[in-house]
Amino acid sequence: MDVGFIGLGHMGQAMVRSLLRAGHFVTVWNRTREKAEPLREAGALIADKIGDVCRGDAVITMLADDQAVENVVCRPHGILDSLEPNKGIHISMSTISPLLVRNLTERHAERNYPFVSAPVLGRPDAAEQGKLFVVAAGDRDSIDFVQPIFDAIGQRTFVISETPETANLVKLSVNAMIATAIEAIGETLALVTKSGDVDPKAYIDVLLSTALGTPLYRPYGENVVNRSFKPEFPIPLALKDMRLTLDAGMERDVPLPIVSLIRDHLLEAIAAGDGGCDWSALALVPQREAGIEQPA
Amino acid sequence: MDVGFIGLGHMGQAMVRSLLRAGHFVTVWNRTREKAEPLREAGALIADKIGDVCRGDAVITMLADDQAVENVVCRPHGILDSLEPNKGIHISMSTISPLLVRNLTERHAERNYPFVSAPVLGRPDAAEQGKLFVVAAGDRDSIDFVQPIFDAIGQRTFVISETPETANLVKLSVNAMIATAIEAIGETLALVTKSGDVDPKAYIDVLLSTALGTPLYRPYGENVVNRSFKPEFPIPLALKDMRLTLDAGMERDVPLPIVSLIRDHLLEAIAAGDGGCDWSALALVPQREAGIEQPA
Amino acid sequence: MDVGFIGLGHMGQAMVRSLLRAGHFVTVWNRTREKAEPLREAGALIADKIGDVCRGDAVITMLADDQAVENVVCRPHGILDSLEPNKGIHISMSTISPLLVRNLTERHAERNYPFVSAPVLGRPDAAEQGKLFVVAAGDRDSIDFVQPIFDAIGQRTFVISETPETANLVKLSVNAMIATAIEAIGETLALVTKSGDVDPKAYIDVLLSTALGTPLYRPYGENVVNRSFKPEFPIPLALKDMRLTLDAGMERDVPLPIVSLIRDHLLEAIAAGDGGCDWSALALVPQREAGIEQPA
Amino acid sequence: MDVGFIGLGHMGQAMVRSLLRAGHFVTVWNRTREKAEPLREAGALIADKIGDVCRGDAVITMLADDQAVENVVCRPHGILDSLEPNKGIHISMSTISPLLVRNLTERHAERNYPFVSAPVLGRPDAAEQGKLFVVAAGDRDSIDFVQPIFDAIGQRTFVISETPETANLVKLSVNAMIATAIEAIGETLALVTKSGDVDPKAYIDVLLSTALGTPLYRPYGENVVNRSFKPEFPIPLALKDMRLTLDAGMERDVPLPIVSLIRDHLLEAIAAGDGGCDWSALALVPQREAGIEQPA
Repeated sequence: MDVGFIGLGHMGQAMVRSLLRAGHFVTVWNRTREKAEPLREAGALIADKIGDVCRGDAVITMLADDQAVENVVCRPHGILDSLEPNKGIHISMSTISPLLVRNLTERHAERNYPFVSAPVLGRPDAAEQGKLFVVAAGDRDSIDFVQPIFDAIGQRTFVISETPETANLVKLSVNAMIATAIEAIGETLALVTKSGDVDPKAYIDVLLSTALGTPLYRPYGENVVNRSFKPEFPIPLALKDMRLTLDAGMERDVPLPIVSLIRDHLLEAIAAGDGGCDWSALALVPQREAGIEQPA
Repeated sequence: MDVGFIGLGHMGQAMVRSLLRAGHFVTVWNRTREKAEPLREAGALIADKIGDVCRGDAVITMLADDQAVENVVCRPHGILDSLEPNKGIHISMSTISPLLVRNLTERHAERNYPFVSAPVLGRPDAAEQGKLFVVAAGDRDSIDFVQPIFDAIGQRTFVISETPETANLVKLSVNAMIATAIEAIGETLALVTKSGDVDPKAYIDVLLSTALGTPLYRPYGENVVNRSFKPEFPIPLALKDMRLTLDAGMERDVPLPIVSLIRDHLLEAIAAGDGGCDWSALALVPQREAGIEQPA
Repeated sequence: MDVGFIGLGHMGQAMVRSLLRAGHFVTVWNRTREKAEPLREAGALIADKIGDVCRGDAVITMLADDQAVENVVCRPHGILDSLEPNKGIHISMSTISPLLVRNLTERHAERNYPFVSAPVLGRPDAAEQGKLFVVAAGDRDSIDFVQPIFDAIGQRTFVISETPETANLVKLSVNAMIATAIEAIGETLALVTKSGDVDPKAYIDVLLSTALGTPLYRPYGENVVNRSFKPEFPIPLALKDMRLTLDAGMERDVPLPIVSLIRDHLLEAIAAGDGGCDWSALALVPQREAGIEQPA
Repeated sequence: MDVGFIGLGHMGQAMVRSLLRAGHFVTVWNRTREKAEPLREAGALIADKIGDVCRGDAVITMLADDQAVENVVCRPHGILDSLEPNKGIHISMSTISPLLVRNLTERHAERNYPFVSAPVLGRPDAAEQGKLFVVAAGDRDSIDFVQPIFDAIGQRTFVISETPETANLVKLSVNAMIATAIEAIGETLALVTKSGDVDPKAYIDVLLSTALGTPLYRPYGENVVNRSFKPEFPIPLALKDMRLTLDAGMERDVPLPIVSLIRDHLLEAIAAGDGGCDWSALALVPQREAGIEQPA
């Protein structure tokens, strides 16, 4: 298929490479053009303006936050100005607020632009290998039409509903599940190891072989036990996601006490100076609260 | 091996059957003798008094709570009165407080009775199939000696440390991880489904294929989506475990905010009349708090 | 003094009456003019446009939220277009976000407009009697200059710092203290009365005579025991304040677990259908969670 | 009246002095006799055995915890062995568990011993001045009979119900209210002062003049702002009370999320090394979590 792609962060670059490897024709655009250059030799075409990535079968946005997406979509000569009715499908794959997705859904519908929300689960290495999970919501025909794109980047597609914003609710919820697990690892690790009798590795080994014995949880358990917090998904991004989740809850009158607790602990992590760490470092907060000394 | 077994609840009965199937010679004792009868034709010998199950290579206790264990161990003609120094190994497999296990460790050590703490992870069907996970702590030689027993009932043994009570800390921690997951399922399910656009099955399917894609978590996700709360592990038992976990935290000055939250929600479940349900019903608490109507 | 006043809700109207009673000359403007009419016979002048309330010694804004304040300040022919350098002092008395106050501070400073933030504590009846507490922050000379205004509406002025937004932090904090007390009343009331032996009045009487024996807390205790939830300060406004508090915490990396808990319980109150009640009804949430039946 | 008194800690000694000053005849007994000596010159008689303080109109117990009370009441030659039916009234003034009070109620009733539970609110200086608040529950005639005792030590008596344990529920609830206020002071103080613009004194001054403007709350606000944490009521005792409160909630299926949070923060305080401080130091926990440096 002929695919436009906007947003070349870690995830975006890896996804573009998976698309190219699967034989799709990909045109990319990025605010800072130099990020696009490495993709040229992988076979991507580099566009000078947004309009040039909106002419194919689909255009994917994979951007950092609501503001970036809103800017690319709504600015003059942005996506809304460049699509044509009932033609190229805009696939929003960014982790953004359900509220913004609802607004985008309306604005696309007014112009008869097909619109699908399809955030992804997985880390950059999964993106590189085409092993993401795709959580899609929107018009069923549109989703069927772009399935080859999802197949190129993901190992499986979950179709959630016909309401695009629900895909973002699910994506945020899975991130909240993961953060819950990291926090619970941290709490129980403090409990088990404070006396000094138990090697943290022994406890994490139990977890990774039982409750957390799934590929999605595994890296967090390993990071904690190896004290390796290189920021694949840094704490401020995790905080953004918890904030989006709480806002979505507020909009629907859904209390989310565990997510509130995690929000507070992420702030505590930042206040303690761990803002540059991977969100696995959330597990250090309960250690500190328990008075367990932390080698820097 | 020649094994005594005290405590014939659901788990105990299933474990005895696994031991017999593996060729061990098993003598059982239970406070209410009729619970022992079904095991006779499976090959178990039924003892009249506790002393009769303390003569073999090992005696296993698998009882409901601290009080039951303390009673069986310390009463006149109980385990302490019946073991012999440096002979049969007492294996405590009950989910009891680390504090009691510490006391038992001391009382056995004073008499030179070998003592191992080895609580198990898994539900009765896993016990039936010999597929439990065994979490063992204690003297290394004793653990090695009783390994054939663990092999009969479990698919894997984790040796945690030489301090028996640490096995109970790990067992409680894994239960706390599971309860955390159930609560988080409940919260995010409320978020995702409140609008009515999303079939709960679709969301749980994502979870079971990603974050919760592990045998240990699977039944809880399935129970929630099927609204099937037949009490395999009833809410009051889950509350007992959270209480033990919080007490262990208090003894070590370890705050456990997620476990505190779950404690409160289990109480809320009981106050709402769900005390007879499986602890999967903990996931209903966030639904109710979100104002989502609950068919009985 | 010659005072302009924008925002004639319950609080605003009462404050204007206190100003007139103290002998000040007051010109009022309101988006919906009919709300201004009752003040005419009390002696206020009604202005046709915002510019007409910006000509005196000071102009007070007392509006519902950030959006309303930003609109009145920044729109064409709004306050920024109407003040003159080093003349009339803009006093922001609304409960708005510290972030917006910081922005307003900068925008006024660029134009050499004096700016004071002075939110008030107290309910409409205190405003009517000139018995509010004024929490002021900003340039010391400006605060001194408008002190007669504060004296007319308040029983006491607290000068917090020279940074206007800090007054809003204090105001939000006091509201958070009050909400904490309401929630704690609710929790402990559930504990004390669930057995049915204790008359709620007896317990609240203890509280009002001891821990809560202060005019600010008294009405909440009384509302709870009288089950009188006529919305003086409705739950959605309380939720707005908790949200502002949490946002201010997020901006400063300050975790606020009690406020998070109250946020969640306010959402639970709304989800249960109590969104139209006074925030005293927050105290009903723990009752319901404890399974205590609530006559409608 | 002729009053026996058991338990001569800080509070007990002060209460005895108030009784003597009001003209009562007081006989005291204490486990460690030297603590009784200072009261001799104040006019108290020192008894050699518990039986000697059980012969008058009433015997008061004012002891540290459940274990101490149970010991003094139930041991051979203890209170139960020494009272006579329908004579001297046992007044339990200790802060102990409602569960123990229920047991004591039953054991006294079986023997026709009148029994009143009457824990007190206030700190040692209030006890010294006879300015405590007395929270009494039990048989109405018995309470009326011992009213002169309450008048000697307290400024006011609240009669809660005829069920003695309810007085303890109320006492624990008031302590939970105070702890909530301390925690909320700590959280909001972190919010208000983190930027460094605001003098903590200025904020606490607002609180003490408004939300916390009551004698009961005042010392905690003052301690926090003066960083004076000399242990009048040390953190481990506060933790004991929160534990009793949570246990009472568990017995009644009443979730208490704020109390759970405070429990966790008291543990965090102890883990940080503040176990020897007054419970006002609970307010330091949110400061540390916010990354605000704490001079030792």
